[in-house]
Amino acid sequence: MRISVIGLGLIGGSIAKDLRREAFCNHIIGIDSSEDNANKALELGIVDEISSLDSGVSNCDLVIIAIPVNHTLAILPRILDNIKDTTTVTDMGSTKQTIVETVKNHKRRANYVPAHPMSGTENSGPEAAEEGLFKNRIAIICDHKESSVQHIALVEKMFQYLGMSIAYMSSAEQDLSTAFVSHLPHAASYALANAVQSKENQEIIFDLASGGFRSAVRLAKSSPQMWAPIFTENKTYVLEALDVYIKHLKSFRDDIAKEDATDMYRSISNANKIREVLDNKNPLLIKDEQKIIKLYTRKI
Amino acid sequence: MRISVIGLGLIGGSIAKDLRREAFCNHIIGIDSSEDNANKALELGIVDEISSLDSGVSNCDLVIIAIPVNHTLAILPRILDNIKDTTTVTDMGSTKQTIVETVKNHKRRANYVPAHPMSGTENSGPEAAEEGLFKNRIAIICDHKESSVQHIALVEKMFQYLGMSIAYMSSAEQDLSTAFVSHLPHAASYALANAVQSKENQEIIFDLASGGFRSAVRLAKSSPQMWAPIFTENKTYVLEALDVYIKHLKSFRDDIAKEDATDMYRSISNANKIREVLDNKNPLLIKDEQKIIKLYTRKI
Repeated sequence: MRISVIGLGLIGGSIAKDLRREAFCNHIIGIDSSEDNANKALELGIVDEISSLDSGVSNCDLVIIAIPVNHTLAILPRILDNIKDTTTVTDMGSTKQTIVETVKNHKRRANYVPAHPMSGTENSGPEAAEEGLFKNRIAIICDHKESSVQHIALVEKMFQYLGMSIAYMSSAEQDLSTAFVSHLPHAASYALANAVQSKENQEIIFDLASGGFRSAVRLAKSSPQMWAPIFTENKTYVLEALDVYIKHLKSFRDDIAKEDATDMYRSISNANKIREVLDNKNPLLIKDEQKIIKLYTRKI
Repeated sequence: MRISVIGLGLIGGSIAKDLRREAFCNHIIGIDSSEDNANKALELGIVDEISSLDSGVSNCDLVIIAIPVNHTLAILPRILDNIKDTTTVTDMGSTKQTIVETVKNHKRRANYVPAHPMSGTENSGPEAAEEGLFKNRIAIICDHKESSVQHIALVEKMFQYLGMSIAYMSSAEQDLSTAFVSHLPHAASYALANAVQSKENQEIIFDLASGGFRSAVRLAKSSPQMWAPIFTENKTYVLEALDVYIKHLKSFRDDIAKEDATDMYRSISNANKIREVLDNKNPLLIKDEQKIIKLYTRKI
């Protein structure tokens, strides 16, 4: 099978590495707007050849788009224009509603499978690509009834080769859920990094930075090229999540101001529950090695 | 040398393990208000004997207090009452000004060395104690001129046996700096865990929790017993830090609402600088294996 990967950074590069190792495909075409990135990916053996966008997608079985969401929005219609009728197209972006909306009337809408693999690191570029990045993580496939069965099947197969479990939901559900579980933590981490850097006695503060601080600001290392468009595309749900977060912060702030130990205990104890929620999740996935396929039905 | 460790949880237990391994002392007396914890620590070989507070501190060379800061506040005067004139007392709490204030007129104030080793995990209890927890981290010693030289010397030696570098500052500087680098990240993480748990479709959200989310909420697993008193004791600086943080969050929220890409890029790029700041710190410590001893002089 021939695949094209558009965007040879962390996500595209990591997918290409795993799909090659697992013999999912025998030829990988790389496409990247940065000539440097493209050459580096070729050098690193991540892709077999470099191509331009139109010619790269015109003769392959699967196109995987792994670029910032605003760029996906801009080029997806053109990609669907240029593929063969049998080609499957999928994108790995963190927001889905605006992208799905853009191509809803395209004659090849059914070739397109909107997806989102829930994994990543704070690094970017082809050198950041790593094997096994997606293993035991969840991949979301959105609005699956809008895609033809053979295209859904190929994307499911790809995620299974990457070692992922698959969850099906509407693009609205995916955008709301990732607003809370991914976009909000990024915004919180950016603000934390900025708040600490705004202090005058920075030298002391950074000398003291321990593991806890490093963990809390880890996401603040993620790039604006990827993240500013995510916040814009998912504005409605991100603002909802941020408002809930700011409300909780202010209420905790007021408990401190009032030295209200009872309410502080209650808030912290409730926050502590995150431990069992999270501890119960991952071991299940890792232990069973079986793919949990869930269909969420909640209406938004 | 005989030492007493008051509080046999993560911090006290980890210190005891390292000091024994490094042959800093040949007898460790354990003191804990929880009989369960005390017996567990004895079983695990963390301490050599269990004692009551007054008799435990009355015949040893060094007393290490590693309990929640409100309890330190309550028992430090009594400990200073009960020690020999030659005994050194130090505490490992995260806040210092209120504690120092409590004993400022005590006749044995000079025996006491207020300290704060900047390390920890989100776990607690004697089973959470681990070797090497403090290696290559920074320990703060506060208001060192208020303690006699021989007591400072012994506490410095202890931190060196734990593999730590030492920073000297006033208790006001320590409380302000840790408000930003430690207390604020905890408050941010508690609010994040609570915000996400307040959503109705929790099941979806937690299924999707990736490494980034886990990193951002890691500190939210820390116990209320330890943390509610820290927020109360360090109220002034914690509120200052929280207010700066909320201001940054709101400003970022407004940039998203206005789809102001320029300001979002600026905020995220500034937040990204945390990468080099942090990357430049730790390798230095690890590579040199030399203890950086800094004296901060900034007035607050």
